[in-house]
Amino acid sequence: MRALSSPQEFAAELRALAPRYWHDHPFHLRLHDGVLGKDELRSWAANRWYYQRCIPQKDAAILANCPLPDVRREWRERIVWHDGTRPGEGGAENWIRMAESLGLSREEVLDERHVLPGTRFAVDAYVTFARTRPWLEAVASGLTEMFSHGLMTRRLADMREKYPWIAEEGFAYFTERLTVIAGEGKSTLDLVIRHCETRQQQEAAVAALSFKCDVLRSILDTVDYYSRRGGR
Amino acid sequence: MRALSSPQEFAAELRALAPRYWHDHPFHLRLHDGVLGKDELRSWAANRWYYQRCIPQKDAAILANCPLPDVRREWRERIVWHDGTRPGEGGAENWIRMAESLGLSREEVLDERHVLPGTRFAVDAYVTFARTRPWLEAVASGLTEMFSHGLMTRRLADMREKYPWIAEEGFAYFTERLTVIAGEGKSTLDLVIRHCETRQQQEAAVAALSFKCDVLRSILDTVDYYSRRGGR
Repeated sequence: MRALSSPQEFAAELRALAPRYWHDHPFHLRLHDGVLGKDELRSWAANRWYYQRCIPQKDAAILANCPLPDVRREWRERIVWHDGTRPGEGGAENWIRMAESLGLSREEVLDERHVLPGTRFAVDAYVTFARTRPWLEAVASGLTEMFSHGLMTRRLADMREKYPWIAEEGFAYFTERLTVIAGEGKSTLDLVIRHCETRQQQEAAVAALSFKCDVLRSILDTVDYYSRRGGR
Repeated sequence: MRALSSPQEFAAELRALAPRYWHDHPFHLRLHDGVLGKDELRSWAANRWYYQRCIPQKDAAILANCPLPDVRREWRERIVWHDGTRPGEGGAENWIRMAESLGLSREEVLDERHVLPGTRFAVDAYVTFARTRPWLEAVASGLTEMFSHGLMTRRLADMREKYPWIAEEGFAYFTERLTVIAGEGKSTLDLVIRHCETRQQQEAAVAALSFKCDVLRSILDTVDYYSRRGGR
């Protein structure tokens, strides 16, 4: 039987996946360089929407598989954050505003006409993962949050500077998200470390985070591919 | 309630999806033009392997959801075709020989090291579809067979001509497949037409075939994307 890594070693194994995060994906590099056209930004926002809209279902699948009230109480807050407390509020709604500020209508975001098959398959794989794997692995897959704070800070600065035609209200998703992710990444890491009681569970958590990096990069792969081809 | 289309009209609706088949995907066009390098052909074969190896599971999921012995008796032959009657036989095995004739080792095919995340997500979506949707929709998704005979005939001729270094035994998958798909496409179409008893079922069958076209194209999207980027 393999030996359990210490909390410090295990945290380091998880953090070692940082280079697999999507911060340096070619499409993100072009986004930050300010070279994307409006159609490319719109495709990005419309495809990312499909990810955003599935996150509360992913989180609900985690609740559905988790027998621990303490964990459920903590985790359900994510659903509240994304769905808001009434129509017109919440992280998902703020993403629609980002899309609108790029010139998409609410209708064409919601009817998913711009969502590419590759985006759908990647995001659906993430939801299926949360539905079919132990809750602890699904929670661990969300640890990409650990890597997102720096990227989002840069995103906000670069987009404001490089695409000055985007109205400020379009950035509400980023500004509101920035206030929560630093905390989320830390408490999720603590949760995963605390509940991984065998080496096998630790390895499954690392594999789950690796899988999630694949999901995120795969969304940008397909957006980048069609962007370079000039559409479908 | 919408009216049922006649068998002829319904068959025409299904055949109308032919332009969405992957015959004219940019990667296939390059394959047929003879311009792909060995690394690109190997990536194609290794990624397509992941599709090939999942097909018997997809077909078994259809059996698992189908309460009709007549349909199951017909459909189970597909599992026999792909898995063979003993180790070293069957369609899947022939695909490994195709990969080997391109210079891949059996080991690197089977350990899936070259399988791209986008391929995995697309193929897994297809297996999940077969597991979670009515058997009739999953059967209808296989109607891409109707479109494959001409492409496979051309594939065989073009690959023999344009890549003369490929050993003839590498083409066993295609030569053996060509003898069955013409028949399969016809009998599957008859099966789908016979069992779609409502307009809703007919529309679901058309949507299933459209979904399957997305799955196939998405595999090539990701292979083409990384091929043009020069690897991962």
